[in-house]
Amino acid sequence: MPERPTKAPDFELLTEDPLNGQPPLGRLVEAEITPREHFYVRNHAPVPAIDADAFRLEFGGLVERPLALSLTELAAEFPVVEVTATLQCAGNRRTELAAVRPIPGEEPWGASAIGNAVWRGVQLAAVLAAAGIAPDAAHVELLGLDRIEKEGETFPFGGSIPLAKAHDPSVLLAFAMNGEPLPPEHGYPLRAIVPGYIGARSVKWLGTIALRREPSENFYQQRAYKLYPPGVSKETAARAHGVMLGELSLSSVICRPTAGEELPAGPVAVRGWALAGGGRTIERVDVSADGGHTWVSASPGAGLGATAPGVWCLWEADVELPTGPAELVCRAVDSAANSQPEALAPLWNFKGYMNNAWHRVPVRCR
Amino acid sequence: MPERPTKAPDFELLTEDPLNGQPPLGRLVEAEITPREHFYVRNHAPVPAIDADAFRLEFGGLVERPLALSLTELAAEFPVVEVTATLQCAGNRRTELAAVRPIPGEEPWGASAIGNAVWRGVQLAAVLAAAGIAPDAAHVELLGLDRIEKEGETFPFGGSIPLAKAHDPSVLLAFAMNGEPLPPEHGYPLRAIVPGYIGARSVKWLGTIALRREPSENFYQQRAYKLYPPGVSKETAARAHGVMLGELSLSSVICRPTAGEELPAGPVAVRGWALAGGGRTIERVDVSADGGHTWVSASPGAGLGATAPGVWCLWEADVELPTGPAELVCRAVDSAANSQPEALAPLWNFKGYMNNAWHRVPVRCR
Repeated sequence: MPERPTKAPDFELLTEDPLNGQPPLGRLVEAEITPREHFYVRNHAPVPAIDADAFRLEFGGLVERPLALSLTELAAEFPVVEVTATLQCAGNRRTELAAVRPIPGEEPWGASAIGNAVWRGVQLAAVLAAAGIAPDAAHVELLGLDRIEKEGETFPFGGSIPLAKAHDPSVLLAFAMNGEPLPPEHGYPLRAIVPGYIGARSVKWLGTIALRREPSENFYQQRAYKLYPPGVSKETAARAHGVMLGELSLSSVICRPTAGEELPAGPVAVRGWALAGGGRTIERVDVSADGGHTWVSASPGAGLGATAPGVWCLWEADVELPTGPAELVCRAVDSAANSQPEALAPLWNFKGYMNNAWHRVPVRCR
Repeated sequence: MPERPTKAPDFELLTEDPLNGQPPLGRLVEAEITPREHFYVRNHAPVPAIDADAFRLEFGGLVERPLALSLTELAAEFPVVEVTATLQCAGNRRTELAAVRPIPGEEPWGASAIGNAVWRGVQLAAVLAAAGIAPDAAHVELLGLDRIEKEGETFPFGGSIPLAKAHDPSVLLAFAMNGEPLPPEHGYPLRAIVPGYIGARSVKWLGTIALRREPSENFYQQRAYKLYPPGVSKETAARAHGVMLGELSLSSVICRPTAGEELPAGPVAVRGWALAGGGRTIERVDVSADGGHTWVSASPGAGLGATAPGVWCLWEADVELPTGPAELVCRAVDSAANSQPEALAPLWNFKGYMNNAWHRVPVRCR
């Protein structure tokens, strides 16, 4: 399967197999809808080769009528809808945390493991209604058709979302991305789309959906994608309480200028993205050119204050840069009046998840 | 109406009429359910005298069948339910912000304008279903029977919540608090309870509910209870974008020991509250005895990790205090992996709302 050519020449590969990569940060603000060739990829196993004609989505567990649906049946029996949704890896912005204290064994994501696309598919809620929900179901397990090899076992990538979230009309079983069939590296022929949640819950190569009483027993629900306190290490994690990740935290990032850039002193347009988790929206982005002492609010043009839940906001702010070194900083406020934490150290965790500290970009002005 | 005697002798009155007051901070951790005599009161006008027999709740606007319901009809025609819910004033912790820069003209709330109670009433969603929702309704306006006098006009206290929130089964029209009829200062005979939202939306002396296309035009929706950036003043607010407050931000507070307390050096039990907004839950509370350099996690006993949405978590952590001055600090993490911001200055706003910075308590050890 030709993996590399599906991405742009400047796409930054972290690993080739499994495929993991991100676009240059500055690319993200070029378009509200991220093109396929710049959309980040986070895979845990080789891309599986799936025969779309033979494919059946198994829909079982605590349901009244187990289903096995071909792609044709899915698209014919349920309304096909389009949803614009942003996906972000829980490990996005890990390199900033790793600068505080090393995070060995995890992909060194910059701040561009995020992308926004138009997804076409059917609502998970519609298929749930057809299968009938048993009274004691509380979680929806999503399992892929890829094969992870870990600790001597082989198993699919998977996880689960609460049943209440599965009723959100924006949660899809998607077969198309940006008007084209789902690319192999993004889950062909079918993937889950769970807006407002960590990317890991938008399971690719989706083969099995099962209603459960409890969250999935899959490794990526029970072991990985858990948030531990700063004092917990890989060695002590088994004795500590880790928070199963679900909804994304509030974050924002400066995409342009980029770190270390040399600029003429004077006015500069700062551009970036902001994303609120769950069903929340971005209400404000503040930008500082002096390390966080004084702030200007981003202009409410590009979607600010009018963002849909689960969709990023691309923002722009004009700041004045003095001669010499300067530190650009951004922080966002969401519709629950949450803002971003300032410092990285209290957010450090040995898996490097969910860094949403103020984003800082050092520049130098002539 | 005898107002003062309904509260404990140590209840701290900010103003007598309208009645505004809070309990001593240390009282909050004495009981999961806050007794009436220690439950904060935030009123904008004198407590109205309402004849419960003549009372009718007007239910109109964009509905198919306008209703006028007596208290007897409400309790007879709809299932009566009990919901445990925490209310918190949007201005809680204002004094910390005012220490950064003065906030004139607003009540100087400490960190105890919060309380948790068992509310009995009927679900707003049930009454909505009986009235029938017109297709273009998107907000539910809630108006009180009190009379605010401001800028030469007289009008009721009010506001609105999104229709989606009104479907939350924990949103009540409540007529009882902690097993007794609603006290006058808490909204007798009927009030809204909107868990996870700023206290202002839990409108007291509730007289009118109206479905609307847009948020309420009431002063307390359109002018007050809006969050402005740090650089905006009362004078420039009309030209700036303020975020209409709804969901509460994540916050946590140390209730014991209290600021300035002298303690013996050695182990000390630190106790406090934590509350997540919207439908989120508290997943972790970290406590520091050295101003935020090192942290211990609160013990998961008192509700931690098992809190219901909209209900506070009372936590306890054992820390070791050295001889001399020390700064106790706490910060919480919610189910969306949001944590609290560290510094007060970026949160300052001229109305003094939604301060959720790390809570700091200076103590001295002998």
